[in-house]
Amino acid sequence: MPKHFEQAPGLYDDPVPETEGYVFNQTMLRIKDPKRSLDFYSRVLGMRLVRKLDFPEMKFSLYFLGYLDDRQAAQVPQDDDYRTTFTFGREAMLELTHNWGTENDEEFEYHNGNDQPQGYGHIGIAVPDVYAAADRFEKLDVEFVKKPDDGKMKGLAFIKDPDGYWIEILQPNMLQKQARES
Amino acid sequence: MPKHFEQAPGLYDDPVPETEGYVFNQTMLRIKDPKRSLDFYSRVLGMRLVRKLDFPEMKFSLYFLGYLDDRQAAQVPQDDDYRTTFTFGREAMLELTHNWGTENDEEFEYHNGNDQPQGYGHIGIAVPDVYAAADRFEKLDVEFVKKPDDGKMKGLAFIKDPDGYWIEILQPNMLQKQARES
Repeated sequence: MPKHFEQAPGLYDDPVPETEGYVFNQTMLRIKDPKRSLDFYSRVLGMRLVRKLDFPEMKFSLYFLGYLDDRQAAQVPQDDDYRTTFTFGREAMLELTHNWGTENDEEFEYHNGNDQPQGYGHIGIAVPDVYAAADRFEKLDVEFVKKPDDGKMKGLAFIKDPDGYWIEILQPNMLQKQARES
Repeated sequence: MPKHFEQAPGLYDDPVPETEGYVFNQTMLRIKDPKRSLDFYSRVLGMRLVRKLDFPEMKFSLYFLGYLDDRQAAQVPQDDDYRTTFTFGREAMLELTHNWGTENDEEFEYHNGNDQPQGYGHIGIAVPDVYAAADRFEKLDVEFVKKPDDGKMKGLAFIKDPDGYWIEILQPNMLQKQARES
């Protein structure tokens, strides 16, 4: 079995047994106001809040959200310690960091990485039907960067979260054509 | 079964059937030089390159990396179209975007989100043994933001990728104490 599924300069082909068991656990974004972000990620995007950690001495809180179906949710430990371990051991958790007080500062805003200076781009959510998802976001007054049929890349949308971070909305089985024509 | 496992203002408690099947698929970072980034993510962090997409007309390439054990790797389609769908349907893919030419511009660098202006913070990798991982990174001359026992948060490291993006290195079963004392 190949280690990689494409060739590219720089790729290391030998096994790396030392990294066995590594898990891409989290992506962290700073947010200005947890109330509006939790509303967005739970109501608009349907994520569950799995763990919340408050650090009063350092005046910040962490919110860990993710997609869990009912079967997975039934396996989430109720015990706080075990749920901490679960949260940090699982793939694909979104970590939102709230530094207390920013929500009361009218001028305060975070940098989304797509305006200058650039770096971070976006998170991406795979959905079963990108057009149905986009129609619903439109009804919910979500801000779009790109609607599914705007631009060259059809069937692919970008929306903004309350802090202005971009979120790609994609339908996995619709991207073959774009990839093939690339 | 509760929808959420913590209470917090803004959280939407009702079911959101419209988001069934949503998957947190990807996190996208722009990189200056794919050769050094692919070396880092495959050799140092042990990720596999699952899909590479080149867009010659728009002069950029996308690299999709992730952790797959041998059993999961055996399920990755060899066919390019099916592998595209696989790549975009799976949780926890790291998408690296390379705009052609930046690797030849000595002055060029991306913004890591932790220097000002802040926004994006980091990705996080769960590892079975944070001290063993940190020792190995040290031997591989990886740059640290924080070694496991620096600062208040013990047993938690931050390293930098070749573009300066931060990567948290954490051991899930070691964070209960920190969380409890928070």
